[in-house]
Amino acid sequence: MIKLDYTNVSNNIIGDEGLDIERIFNEYAPRIQEIITNLNMNKDKPGYWLQWMNLGYREETVWYVKEFAAMVDGRFDNILVLGIGGSSLGGLALSEALLKPYWNLLDKEQRDNFPRIFFLDNIDPDEISGLLNILDLKKTLVNVITKSGSTAETMAQFMIIKDRMHELLGDDYRKNIVATTDKQAGILRQLANEEGYKTFVVPDDVGGRFSVFSAVGLLPLALVGIDIDEIIRGIKLMDLTLKNTDIRKNIAAQNALIHFLMDKEKGKYISVMMPYSSKLKYFPDWYAQLWAESLGKAYNKEGIEIHNGPTPLKARGVTDQYSQMQLFNEGKNDKVITFIRVNEFDNELMIPNIFEYTGVNYLGGKTINRLMNAEIDAASVTFCDYKRPNLTISLPRINEYYLAQLFYLYEIQTAIAGELYNIDAFSQPSTEHSKDYTYALMDRLGYEESANELREKIAKNKEIMGLN
Amino acid sequence: MIKLDYTNVSNNIIGDEGLDIERIFNEYAPRIQEIITNLNMNKDKPGYWLQWMNLGYREETVWYVKEFAAMVDGRFDNILVLGIGGSSLGGLALSEALLKPYWNLLDKEQRDNFPRIFFLDNIDPDEISGLLNILDLKKTLVNVITKSGSTAETMAQFMIIKDRMHELLGDDYRKNIVATTDKQAGILRQLANEEGYKTFVVPDDVGGRFSVFSAVGLLPLALVGIDIDEIIRGIKLMDLTLKNTDIRKNIAAQNALIHFLMDKEKGKYISVMMPYSSKLKYFPDWYAQLWAESLGKAYNKEGIEIHNGPTPLKARGVTDQYSQMQLFNEGKNDKVITFIRVNEFDNELMIPNIFEYTGVNYLGGKTINRLMNAEIDAASVTFCDYKRPNLTISLPRINEYYLAQLFYLYEIQTAIAGELYNIDAFSQPSTEHSKDYTYALMDRLGYEESANELREKIAKNKEIMGLN
Repeated sequence: MIKLDYTNVSNNIIGDEGLDIERIFNEYAPRIQEIITNLNMNKDKPGYWLQWMNLGYREETVWYVKEFAAMVDGRFDNILVLGIGGSSLGGLALSEALLKPYWNLLDKEQRDNFPRIFFLDNIDPDEISGLLNILDLKKTLVNVITKSGSTAETMAQFMIIKDRMHELLGDDYRKNIVATTDKQAGILRQLANEEGYKTFVVPDDVGGRFSVFSAVGLLPLALVGIDIDEIIRGIKLMDLTLKNTDIRKNIAAQNALIHFLMDKEKGKYISVMMPYSSKLKYFPDWYAQLWAESLGKAYNKEGIEIHNGPTPLKARGVTDQYSQMQLFNEGKNDKVITFIRVNEFDNELMIPNIFEYTGVNYLGGKTINRLMNAEIDAASVTFCDYKRPNLTISLPRINEYYLAQLFYLYEIQTAIAGELYNIDAFSQPSTEHSKDYTYALMDRLGYEESANELREKIAKNKEIMGLN
Repeated sequence: MIKLDYTNVSNNIIGDEGLDIERIFNEYAPRIQEIITNLNMNKDKPGYWLQWMNLGYREETVWYVKEFAAMVDGRFDNILVLGIGGSSLGGLALSEALLKPYWNLLDKEQRDNFPRIFFLDNIDPDEISGLLNILDLKKTLVNVITKSGSTAETMAQFMIIKDRMHELLGDDYRKNIVATTDKQAGILRQLANEEGYKTFVVPDDVGGRFSVFSAVGLLPLALVGIDIDEIIRGIKLMDLTLKNTDIRKNIAAQNALIHFLMDKEKGKYISVMMPYSSKLKYFPDWYAQLWAESLGKAYNKEGIEIHNGPTPLKARGVTDQYSQMQLFNEGKNDKVITFIRVNEFDNELMIPNIFEYTGVNYLGGKTINRLMNAEIDAASVTFCDYKRPNLTISLPRINEYYLAQLFYLYEIQTAIAGELYNIDAFSQPSTEHSKDYTYALMDRLGYEESANELREKIAKNKEIMGLN
């Protein structure tokens, strides 16, 4: 079971910058009880966007995903995931964590015959050309992921790649495509029906950033041999734990409340996510989307303008001790830092007893694992010396079971935080706003007027400033 | 020449959230003139830590680097850089930008016979084991980088790898090591002398985060075939431009002043760095270190406690339009966003005219390059609609010449910002603080007392909270 240690956000440790944990747990116990009760009560109701809370119990999805993975086993050298934002970040973060390091550089044998995996989550022409240069499309399975099928970036990627596959493979190209999309509506569903692609479903009422445990995340993971049964087991256990309405027993509620009050009462507007593990390097990216898109809202539920939102910030231990930590300690005291600690790594590496007559001789004969954990201790005590609030989440080790717990913990925590802030955690109005401008600039029908306005705006702005 | 467009931070465009550019340029012209004059006057004086301003003129370094690269040409399949923070981020960011995409996955031929390159900037035991698993150490050149030789992380990595090389290669292992370190002092210099490694120098009075254009950054780049003469040409041109003491002609001064006043007068405590290019994915990491460590300071030059420091935040376009942008637009208005725009990519990719009877038909027949630039325009106008200040730096294209300009621009800008904030931009006291704790926990001689204190502190904190 993963653990949360909130010692170092307490006013007993860091004085006025900290919280009176006893007091806030008592004060918020009824509100937390109400929030958790409501979440569990509403999770099946349409329009609440809480269906992600049921993803641990969709046995048929797991079954279909495993069946498909078994069916294509050995057929492909590469999996190419086309998707952006929530359609890619979960799979990316989990595969980076759960596959052997440097997976794509390993021999097929070292990969136990599973394929390499690539996530294309941008439209950089040089990156796409480079990728097409290294992938044999005949031996590549493309998993295109977009619920609506109208995501311009993903569809543009798909159009380019599908066209090349068609040319290369003739009508057989279909066998190299699997689409994850809405169960009946949208452009990609229409195309899949017409052209005959294998499909998986992005379930209704599951937002992109909460979709990692649907087919969106599970399919790519299963295709490279990750044990999705263990993932489901991790979610289920965490779901049981987090159903507990008692704040003293629910770490998602504790962490949500601490972050909420750190923001509101202590001016900690920035939430730093700092795993001490290279395998978790993309976890902060997934967290950043979840926290930023869910909590960054202009209006509260009553329609009052509030411009809410703590800012997530990505970091990595120990690397960032030599980069961002100087600022975290001595700069504005506006951050709450979360360490992720891995108790046991898969490997233990001894630092040999060499260089005995030099100043680094103290390292010899100790493991580098010990150095890693010494660094977390050193960093967290340093933060306390500077009165900087910090929390530690501990994972017994990195595997499917514990990572599923970690990701699910953060989903629940985000939902609870949304309620504490009294905002809708499941919308993203400004993303839509920017999309419309993009459509306009790409001459999409129906956006002509917006396009003219936009071009005039840009030209006028430059004129005002005497530029161009 | 790279360009800065500050249209969208002006109060003409975003109202009260913006700055009166005319007024501030007039008001600060004398101060900027003084700062730039002083920087150029002091750059050769010891103790000012401004020697990085001379790195474009050290012809002998460039010569030695090129000579060594030519000498080992064809001998190695891999370059492995051991270093952390400033010893790694510059080389990492520049090699990612300047090498062909997916470099380490290319055939040797596609790499024009140059080696693959790996930066090991962490001490994760699983990552190190994984790396040792894929590298043939006989065909690997290790470039170990630490000025003092006492950086525990880098030296621990080096001890593990040197020991294996020794075992594998006998006394020939020396030929596979090149050390970049102090010219005469420190543990690594001592070892290099005793064991006979080829060495390069980290120049005096050049801090880690300003060392990218010394041998620290140039050597790894030259070893994989990057044109360091073009890099030097880029720095020199930029250096001339930035010597201009007139704020109206010096974009480093403009950007420093705008960021300074956005922080101090407009409450924009966060500086978002958002390149629209996959090749620039590590540029925000380099920038984050430079900006955070340089400006995040507890005391000003007069020793008054100020807890200074805007927080740099990493982002990537277009990807983060589906992740962090919702928060940037609708959350707290506490950010200034910098777009990096690439005018011309190396490749132009056409989106084919397929799916003509669907809602994505508007994409067909246009280039994905056009979509990329439409997205920046859409994002920047959206930011303006939400009254969020944003700047754009444009690169004509991505190559050695323009990237050197970009990196050098930011170094100068950081130095100017340090003066505006009246802080010492070239120290990092809190990093040292945390290092001492690490030494203590690793039983380094002389740190016993500190170790006991530290362990008691950790135990006591947990006791207070009733944990453990």
